[in-house]
Amino acid sequence: MKIYLAGPDVFLPDAIEIGRQKAAICAAHGLTGLYPLDNIVDLTAPDASRQIFCGNEAMMDEADAIIANLTPFRGAGADPGTVYELGYMAGRRKFCLAYCNDGAAYADRVGRFMAVTSEDGRLVDALGLTIEDFGLVDNLMMIHALELHGCPLVTPAEQPVDLWHDLAAFETCVRMAAARLIAT
Amino acid sequence: MKIYLAGPDVFLPDAIEIGRQKAAICAAHGLTGLYPLDNIVDLTAPDASRQIFCGNEAMMDEADAIIANLTPFRGAGADPGTVYELGYMAGRRKFCLAYCNDGAAYADRVGRFMAVTSEDGRLVDALGLTIEDFGLVDNLMMIHALELHGCPLVTPAEQPVDLWHDLAAFETCVRMAAARLIAT
Repeated sequence: MKIYLAGPDVFLPDAIEIGRQKAAICAAHGLTGLYPLDNIVDLTAPDASRQIFCGNEAMMDEADAIIANLTPFRGAGADPGTVYELGYMAGRRKFCLAYCNDGAAYADRVGRFMAVTSEDGRLVDALGLTIEDFGLVDNLMMIHALELHGCPLVTPAEQPVDLWHDLAAFETCVRMAAARLIAT
Repeated sequence: MKIYLAGPDVFLPDAIEIGRQKAAICAAHGLTGLYPLDNIVDLTAPDASRQIFCGNEAMMDEADAIIANLTPFRGAGADPGTVYELGYMAGRRKFCLAYCNDGAAYADRVGRFMAVTSEDGRLVDALGLTIEDFGLVDNLMMIHALELHGCPLVTPAEQPVDLWHDLAAFETCVRMAAARLIAT
């Protein structure tokens, strides 16, 4: 059974090593991890970004499931590139799993970046835009997609010291994927 | 033909009015706009967020196409909730369109929020995470998904004064959708 390994992990300085570790955890549970950087792309080609897209989409189409890293990326919420992939896999009716190494509620996270105020009963950000305030860890579309198209989002009981390298919550996802995919 | 109207527009103070304007533009081009806030949800119910999700997913399943507003939201990139929906619709093989009222390259936008430096040939953010640097307006997954599953992202020739209320780029998407969907 093949799992697409989505996440902003590909932007880490040690992106290749993290992919190797994730694939090894998958293998230990009888699964095959497919990591975007496994695709060979000539980064100097004029269509490099399109080659990356096509490689990722082919991997997703080949995979039975996705494990997405929704740890906040450059702001209060998950990496949009990763979220696109989660949506794509839900649309393809693949099995959807994800983890987030920051278990804080989304509304609290927004407060780390800007003033959050209350206006006519709505929680609003510095620009007056409503902040989703359902006590969820991120936008409700991802949170409920996981519940309804796979397994609920995994967050660590305690926030890890290294948000980007701690793979305990990832391994929980792998275990859940193995229980589901190998049984069926 | 039905178009799902995705975007952080639902977080604007005048969210309902924007939805009404978008639906009117669709109607003027012979299309039916489906706007998330058209769903009736009891926001005091304990499962309100799940009701919203289910309503949105049902609307997406009913729609023939999506027009997503990818204008940067609370940071350098698009709203993850909207991007989830774009991915979902691409996965369902629906016709995908989107616009972004900020035509700046993603890497330039990141520079508005934090120091951007160059490290071993990679452009990196304040945390040392690689910044995608293909000259694209947002993450390559969304940009190429649009090219390959619908129409290329629409950006305005000149940045509108009011990023959240200018609907010229939106109307361009509607026109493209009408040309494609009504012809087939």
